[in-house]
Amino acid sequence: FVQLFGKVVFGVDDEKFDAVLSAAKERVGAEKDSDLDAETLRGIVQKFKAICREHSNRPFPSNPDAQLEMAVRAVFGSWMGERAVVYREKEGITPDIADGTAVNVVAMVFGNMGNGSATGVAFTRDPGNGSRNLFGEYLVNAQGEDVVAGTRTPKPIDLMRRELPSSYVELKRMCALLEKQYREPQDIEFTIERGRFYLLQTRAAKTNAAAMVRISVDMVREGTISKEHGLRRLELKKLDQLLHPTLEEKAKKSSKSAVRGIAASPGAASGIAVFDVGRAKSLGEAGNVVILVREETKPEDVPAFYASAGILTSRGGTLSHAAVVARSMGKPCIVGTSDMRIDYAAARCTLPDGTAIKEGETITIDGSDGSVYRGALPVVEPRLTPEFWTILGWANAVKRLGVRANADTPAAARQAREYGARGIGLCRTERMFNEEGRIGLFQDMIMASSDAERRQHLRKLVAMQRRDFEKILGAMAGHKVTIRLLDPPLHEFLRTPAELEAEIRGMGSRAAAGPRGRAAKAHLERARELAEVNPMMGHRGVRVGVTYPEIYEAQIGAVFDAAEALSRRGVRAIPQVMVPQVGSASELAYVKRIFDGVAARKRAGGARVRVAFGTMIEVVRAALTAGELVAADASFFSFGTNDLTQATYSFSREDAEGKFLPRYLEEGLLGGNPFESLDESGVGRLIGLAVGDGRRADAGLEIGICGEHGGDPASIRFCHGAGVSYVSASPHRVPIAIVAAAQAALDGAGGGGAGGAAARGKRRRASASDKSAASRRGRRSAPASAKPA
Amino acid sequence: FVQLFGKVVFGVDDEKFDAVLSAAKERVGAEKDSDLDAETLRGIVQKFKAICREHSNRPFPSNPDAQLEMAVRAVFGSWMGERAVVYREKEGITPDIADGTAVNVVAMVFGNMGNGSATGVAFTRDPGNGSRNLFGEYLVNAQGEDVVAGTRTPKPIDLMRRELPSSYVELKRMCALLEKQYREPQDIEFTIERGRFYLLQTRAAKTNAAAMVRISVDMVREGTISKEHGLRRLELKKLDQLLHPTLEEKAKKSSKSAVRGIAASPGAASGIAVFDVGRAKSLGEAGNVVILVREETKPEDVPAFYASAGILTSRGGTLSHAAVVARSMGKPCIVGTSDMRIDYAAARCTLPDGTAIKEGETITIDGSDGSVYRGALPVVEPRLTPEFWTILGWANAVKRLGVRANADTPAAARQAREYGARGIGLCRTERMFNEEGRIGLFQDMIMASSDAERRQHLRKLVAMQRRDFEKILGAMAGHKVTIRLLDPPLHEFLRTPAELEAEIRGMGSRAAAGPRGRAAKAHLERARELAEVNPMMGHRGVRVGVTYPEIYEAQIGAVFDAAEALSRRGVRAIPQVMVPQVGSASELAYVKRIFDGVAARKRAGGARVRVAFGTMIEVVRAALTAGELVAADASFFSFGTNDLTQATYSFSREDAEGKFLPRYLEEGLLGGNPFESLDESGVGRLIGLAVGDGRRADAGLEIGICGEHGGDPASIRFCHGAGVSYVSASPHRVPIAIVAAAQAALDGAGGGGAGGAAARGKRRRASASDKSAASRRGRRSAPASAKPA
Repeated sequence: FVQLFGKVVFGVDDEKFDAVLSAAKERVGAEKDSDLDAETLRGIVQKFKAICREHSNRPFPSNPDAQLEMAVRAVFGSWMGERAVVYREKEGITPDIADGTAVNVVAMVFGNMGNGSATGVAFTRDPGNGSRNLFGEYLVNAQGEDVVAGTRTPKPIDLMRRELPSSYVELKRMCALLEKQYREPQDIEFTIERGRFYLLQTRAAKTNAAAMVRISVDMVREGTISKEHGLRRLELKKLDQLLHPTLEEKAKKSSKSAVRGIAASPGAASGIAVFDVGRAKSLGEAGNVVILVREETKPEDVPAFYASAGILTSRGGTLSHAAVVARSMGKPCIVGTSDMRIDYAAARCTLPDGTAIKEGETITIDGSDGSVYRGALPVVEPRLTPEFWTILGWANAVKRLGVRANADTPAAARQAREYGARGIGLCRTERMFNEEGRIGLFQDMIMASSDAERRQHLRKLVAMQRRDFEKILGAMAGHKVTIRLLDPPLHEFLRTPAELEAEIRGMGSRAAAGPRGRAAKAHLERARELAEVNPMMGHRGVRVGVTYPEIYEAQIGAVFDAAEALSRRGVRAIPQVMVPQVGSASELAYVKRIFDGVAARKRAGGARVRVAFGTMIEVVRAALTAGELVAADASFFSFGTNDLTQATYSFSREDAEGKFLPRYLEEGLLGGNPFESLDESGVGRLIGLAVGDGRRADAGLEIGICGEHGGDPASIRFCHGAGVSYVSASPHRVPIAIVAAAQAALDGAGGGGAGGAAARGKRRRASASDKSAASRRGRRSAPASAKPA
Repeated sequence: FVQLFGKVVFGVDDEKFDAVLSAAKERVGAEKDSDLDAETLRGIVQKFKAICREHSNRPFPSNPDAQLEMAVRAVFGSWMGERAVVYREKEGITPDIADGTAVNVVAMVFGNMGNGSATGVAFTRDPGNGSRNLFGEYLVNAQGEDVVAGTRTPKPIDLMRRELPSSYVELKRMCALLEKQYREPQDIEFTIERGRFYLLQTRAAKTNAAAMVRISVDMVREGTISKEHGLRRLELKKLDQLLHPTLEEKAKKSSKSAVRGIAASPGAASGIAVFDVGRAKSLGEAGNVVILVREETKPEDVPAFYASAGILTSRGGTLSHAAVVARSMGKPCIVGTSDMRIDYAAARCTLPDGTAIKEGETITIDGSDGSVYRGALPVVEPRLTPEFWTILGWANAVKRLGVRANADTPAAARQAREYGARGIGLCRTERMFNEEGRIGLFQDMIMASSDAERRQHLRKLVAMQRRDFEKILGAMAGHKVTIRLLDPPLHEFLRTPAELEAEIRGMGSRAAAGPRGRAAKAHLERARELAEVNPMMGHRGVRVGVTYPEIYEAQIGAVFDAAEALSRRGVRAIPQVMVPQVGSASELAYVKRIFDGVAARKRAGGARVRVAFGTMIEVVRAALTAGELVAADASFFSFGTNDLTQATYSFSREDAEGKFLPRYLEEGLLGGNPFESLDESGVGRLIGLAVGDGRRADAGLEIGICGEHGGDPASIRFCHGAGVSYVSASPHRVPIAIVAAAQAALDGAGGGGAGGAAARGKRRRASASDKSAASRRGRRSAPASAKPA
């Protein structure tokens, strides 16, 4: 007590007391504190008091009232201590949440008064799986310190039923009462003093994701909480764990990562490292589990993505090609492991410790935290438990936002539908051009020297695309499928000038003069012609559609044909054609004329299917002139919040994440990463303007968002409030989006209030943040340091 | 008559009639129409009538009333003819301007009834210099056709005074009357039939720029028009001619351009072509007049700009480096002469016709229309006439917008001030780093391996910059000078990786291992490190200030020191520090803390000068969160409309102008080039939001625009309406900006109405567009084709 009092009231370092204690123990040959006899202890107390006197320059108070008052004042004083201030700042605990502390003065109880006494900790439900069993441990004739010291092994809580039956009954009663009171499973600490049960502390129990879900369902069924509460109490970040393969926790804890990068797509995978795109593809297709390891990836590498279990790149940020594609495929991905050097020629990469991973060596990547391990760590596959399905059912009944998926393949469409997506909000047609056997054809199309030649290559490509459209529309039959016309600049489909120059330099002069050399030179010339200073803001999206209208014309034709073929087979296809990068009504009107021309020809040819026509809102000017876009025949809007965020901040995400964004986040210059959670005051204001103008022009206008924000809970909450019709998320995030939409509806986030609600949500999560088990134990029998001796 | 009637009423081709006429002339051996005798003419008329009958399938009308009615109907019918519709569309003549035509039926008069008859054309003032002399010519005993045929030489109008004195008096009377009526000098056509004066047509006279100015001043002084009208009637585009050197018109007309490019900076210059930056600089400094000819230019080439009379690049658009720098220096510049191939090694460039210009050959460039000529064409230097100064005086009294200049050098500041600029709205500090002897130091700073080393290089740089600031602040003493902190990404000051790689490849292996090789390799490594995918949206502006705060700190210190030194010498320096690329209040607050720290240190050191602190609004998010920026201590805003336009459209101007913008303008997908005239519905809406929010937060907030739009009349009109405090234009455009601001004030352009007013302005200019003198002459005696025979 003197030590604790000295520390809290007088600010004396523990070390000074410990030195006295150690010296005393050495002198009498004692090993543990409890081995010391009363006389020695008395001497130690005197010395402790002397330390306090010396430090505070006044006698140690011997009056219990004076001690109590000093202790209470010390606790109040600690509120403005540096540590507390910094902690509150970091956790976002502002004065409107907590503007002071309280001091409880309680009598000390003792669990070490013989065999009728005990101390313990219990969870009202199993935090590992959520089952309704009491979970915890206790020690007879002991105080909290004994548990911390680890000299005795606590017993499982079930033994109490026999050993301390009446206390056990009391504990059970308490658990039921507390759960009813707090409507959350509880994590409680208790002490039994001579048969009398004392509750020391109770708080909401931390559980894992599976337990969290099961507890919601169980508590609703038990009648303890309402369905609404069962939904609201779910932490969405945790829910995400259930939707990706994860590393077995124990194995992860006992392993050291070989290198770390940026977590770019969640999930874990073990496989052999392969540094070559072609080999990754062939090895993967031959049945090997492959992790593709590259400096960076390009569209033409996508076939190898399909054949790989995970992707690891040493460059790039979370919007690099590898990251975006991996996320959309739901494959784990780590990017920007900048401490790792890849040597393609030697087929190996050097780690920060100087050792190297050779091709074929097994590695494990955890895309949820960016860790790379050597060897195979056990991976746990995700599965949606029956309880999760129950939750999704409740959420679907409550939410008002539609939830669709971003899906570019029939497999993704099927998975999204299974997870509860009702429609596809974004189907990127360029992804299909990157598939095996098509990229060459696409390059031929770009290299075409005449419109006629370009049309010929296009016909072949689009015939393939028509079959993809059929499969995707079929997989989502009965729901809308929004197909976006070609978006990236054409040079993204070619090799880079630097690569081609190196290749040509590397050729013998004979080879360079031969057909291969000539082809490479032609490719180089075109690549140089198409090269851009700022490709993000260059010749892409609708601008390609305007300069090469035959491309959009062919794609629109393929959509009509696919839908018509399905509808003739009795399948209800509901396609929507969407134009990317639109910045003005005149651009949209230009494409609409192409669209109308195709529609008229298809109708003349007997087609009866109807296709909706709409626009992305991802260029700032589109958001500012939304009313004009409706007048130019947009029947729906879809916010591309990735590009809109980049344009609003004038941040190129690729450049920002590698260069100044880390510093910005560190300096607190951004509330958070605006590419993860929607920036409400900037981008959100644009969305608000566009929704307002759009709905004024057409009250029934369908408005969605299809950026990555579509899967982010805070952003979904904002969308709910902003009057958006639906969000579109990658298939893996569809269940999260459904629950987030339900939570937003339950919280009644609305309009300008959305910001506040989202902030509240963040704070709630922050204030629930964990403290370590050790510190909890240490404080077990000492809820306030103001306990009198 | 039959021919004209047949053509207008029946739509018969002229050729059919001409064939008959030629055959007849050949048969009788006549040379001119007037040589034909009555009999032959009668035969021709019969044949003409037969042609009409054949074409229209009905007899030629012989009743004059019927003829008249058919003619009138034909003229009315022509209103919806394809040619008329296309013409109106092109000229922007919408139904609210003109929704139909009128037909005047007048009696024919004849100038060929003997020596008391005549026909002529007269300007009420000299269109070449504006002097108050009657200007024109006439022919006695002639019709309009005789003038067109060119067989007789018309006499100067002054001879009429003796030859046809009473008609001359009548003509003078008419001129005075018409000028009073129309308040514009007139271009009139007349015929005298047997001594009686007939006015056939009158219209506003087209004059050149100098005449336009003089006429305004003269007519105001004569009391014909008010000062306001004198200002309003000025065509600003024409006024621009007076502010740059121009090619002598006659020489230009008689010369053929060797190649054409994009007109990037107006003005003309003759000099020797030099393909090397170093040689251009040394030759220029040695007193030669040099035209720098390059594929493209970089910041480190700027010293050569100062030494050159004009710049010509084969690549780039109007926002390329060469174009922007040349405009800001007021030097003529042509970019994107893509038909020209430069061979640096051979020091020559090949023209489209296969011939080559060798270094040292004299060429002439006209930056106002993009023409390049071989040899020296005479150049006319600009001068502001006394009348122009009078106009500027009136304009200054009327305008409500402030007019400042964008100036980076003391010379530019002095010129701007002389032209009437009251303050500098944009002083770009990076331009100063590009000067001779500094770029190397700046590169050293970038290459610095530690903060300490960086600070050391910075100190030297900033000492130089302090002297520049002193000179500029001194040149603009008594007026505000807004100094923008470093804006471009650091890699813009380095050589490109491709250049460095080529250099290293080109070194012998010994050189590569030596100090030069090591330096090049270190440079290359840093250049690669700093390279960006989208530099427009990358690590630049305030983002550099956040990651290298020592740079901004040093620059701010230099501003304080320069102003303090001046003020100690009794010079009133009013500096303002402006932060570029700000996207959020937190960034601005970050720089404000640096600023406050510097200010406190300077005050502690005895400085008493005050420096204002403000922000550019060039990032979309800044416009959307303007209220927050005021709260973060911005005491002024300055819209960077170049970058804001790029961000709003997601157009990289460099890429757009070379790739899709031409197609867009051709297809009519943009009303005009948004980089020339401000896009009112997109960018303008953002400006409106920011002005509104900014003024709500601080009613006295000073708001300017400093993009190139600051010198564009339509944009100035918009700014006036939007409540902007001032515009800042390049020094050469300051007089135009002053007159444009006065016109906006006189037109009372305001708020939402600004768009309408600007559109009106455009239409007015369009409807005043010229028709060729020939067509005018052809119609001289035939004001409507409905004249009875």
